[in-house]
Amino acid sequence: MGDIAVVGIGPGAAKQCTPEADAAIGRATVVAGYTTYIALLEGRLDGKRLIATGMMREIERCHAAVDAAMQGERVAVVCSGDAGIYGMASLVLESAEGKGLDISIFPGITAACSGAALLGAPLSHDFCTISLSDLLTPQDLIDKRVRAAAMGDFCIVIYNPMSKSRRDKLSRACDILLETLRPDTVCGWTKNIGRDGEQSKILPLSELRDEEVDMFTTVFIGNSQTRAIDGRMVTPRGYENKTHQSRH
Amino acid sequence: MGDIAVVGIGPGAAKQCTPEADAAIGRATVVAGYTTYIALLEGRLDGKRLIATGMMREIERCHAAVDAAMQGERVAVVCSGDAGIYGMASLVLESAEGKGLDISIFPGITAACSGAALLGAPLSHDFCTISLSDLLTPQDLIDKRVRAAAMGDFCIVIYNPMSKSRRDKLSRACDILLETLRPDTVCGWTKNIGRDGEQSKILPLSELRDEEVDMFTTVFIGNSQTRAIDGRMVTPRGYENKTHQSRH
Repeated sequence: MGDIAVVGIGPGAAKQCTPEADAAIGRATVVAGYTTYIALLEGRLDGKRLIATGMMREIERCHAAVDAAMQGERVAVVCSGDAGIYGMASLVLESAEGKGLDISIFPGITAACSGAALLGAPLSHDFCTISLSDLLTPQDLIDKRVRAAAMGDFCIVIYNPMSKSRRDKLSRACDILLETLRPDTVCGWTKNIGRDGEQSKILPLSELRDEEVDMFTTVFIGNSQTRAIDGRMVTPRGYENKTHQSRH
Repeated sequence: MGDIAVVGIGPGAAKQCTPEADAAIGRATVVAGYTTYIALLEGRLDGKRLIATGMMREIERCHAAVDAAMQGERVAVVCSGDAGIYGMASLVLESAEGKGLDISIFPGITAACSGAALLGAPLSHDFCTISLSDLLTPQDLIDKRVRAAAMGDFCIVIYNPMSKSRRDKLSRACDILLETLRPDTVCGWTKNIGRDGEQSKILPLSELRDEEVDMFTTVFIGNSQTRAIDGRMVTPRGYENKTHQSRH
C-alpha cells in the first residue's frame, strides 16, 4: 500500500517552503493539487504523475489521491499556505477514513503569517481567522463569527474576502464590525504574497469597506490597540504599560 | 546603519525552518533570542555575537538588538514558531519607532500549524488563538475572549496554557467553555513539537480540564463539528453536506 503526504508549500516561493515539505514532494510519485499551485512547483515535479484539478474540485482530487495511494503510489497532496488551515488535510483524512493508509501532514506558512510579516506585526496578540466564503458555511454563521470576533476585541484575518459570484462579502463583514469597532481601527491587506504582483496596503476600517479585493487577497483587521508605526501595522503584545514587565 | 531581521524559526528542527529564515540568520552578525531557542540553533551561529536572555526579558533583548543595529550590526532577532504570532516582531517595531532602521520580518511555522499537523486537521475551519498568559493581558479580557470564541463556534488554539506561577489557567478556560460547549467536544494537545519528547493526545473537553500541561504545550479545542477519525482530530471544512460541492 502507498501513502499520502498532505503538504503545505507556503505562499508559493521556494524560499518560504520548509525543507521537510520540499522533501515530501520530492519523495512522491504522484502529486495532486489545484492547478494554480501545481504551477508554482514548476521544476520540482519531473517524472511525477500529476492530478491537477481546478478550484471547487477538492473532493474529486481527494478521492483520486486516496485511490492512487491504495494502488501503491506515494502521493503528495499540495496546498498553498498551510496543509490544515483552509487546506486539504481534513478532506484527505475524511476521504481515507478506515482505509488504513499512512497519512502525514506537513505544515506550511499560512497567509495569516506571511501576510502579517509583509504588513508588520498585526497578529502579536490573540486573533481569529474567518473565511468569508459561503460555499461550505451558512452566511448566518459567518456573520455570527464576525460579530463574536469584534466582541472579543480579537485581531481578525479574513481569508477568501470575495468569491467569483459575490463581491459584497467584505463590505458586509465591515458593516458588522463597524457596529462595534471604531471607524479608524487600523486595517491592512496583502495580495500575491511572495509572487509576482505582491502588494500590501494599510488603511482604516471605514475605507476597507469599499476596497477592491480578489481571491488572492488576505485582509487584516486590528484590535483596539493596533496602530501604524513607521508605515507598518503593529498590534502591541501587551494591554498594560510595558514597564509592568520589569516587575518579573 | 545596520538592519534587523525578525525571524520565525518554526518549532525548532531545521527541517521546519524556511530557507529564507535560515538565510536571514546566516547573514546576521548578531543574533538575539530567548536562551532556549538560541540553543536550538546550535551549529548555525559560529562567529556571531549572541544576545541571549531568559524569559520575560523581551524588552531588554529588543533594546539591545536595536542598539546593535544602530551601531551598524546586521541583527537577527529569533523567535520560536512565527516571528509575529506571540513573537517579537511587534516589540522590535515599537522599539525601533522613528529610528529609520531597515526592519524585515520572516514568518515561521507557528504552533497552531505544527501542532495541528501532529494531531490531524483540527483547524480546517475558522479558529481563534488565545494566550492564557496574564502577564500582559488582564484576566477579564482573557475570559471575555474565551467566551466570545465559544459563542462563535470557533476552533480554539491555546498558547501558554500555564505560567510558572499559576497552574489553574487551563481549567479556568475549560470551565468557561463548558458553559456553552458539549463536554464531549473533541480536544487535543501537543508538546515539544519537532523536538525530543514530542507528544500529543486527543481527549474530550471534560477531561482536558484536569490535564497536566506545561509552557511547551499547545492546546486545541474543536468546534461543534470536530470529530476523531482513525485516531486523528479532524474539523471538517464544510458545515453543509459534502455533496453540496458537486453543484459547482
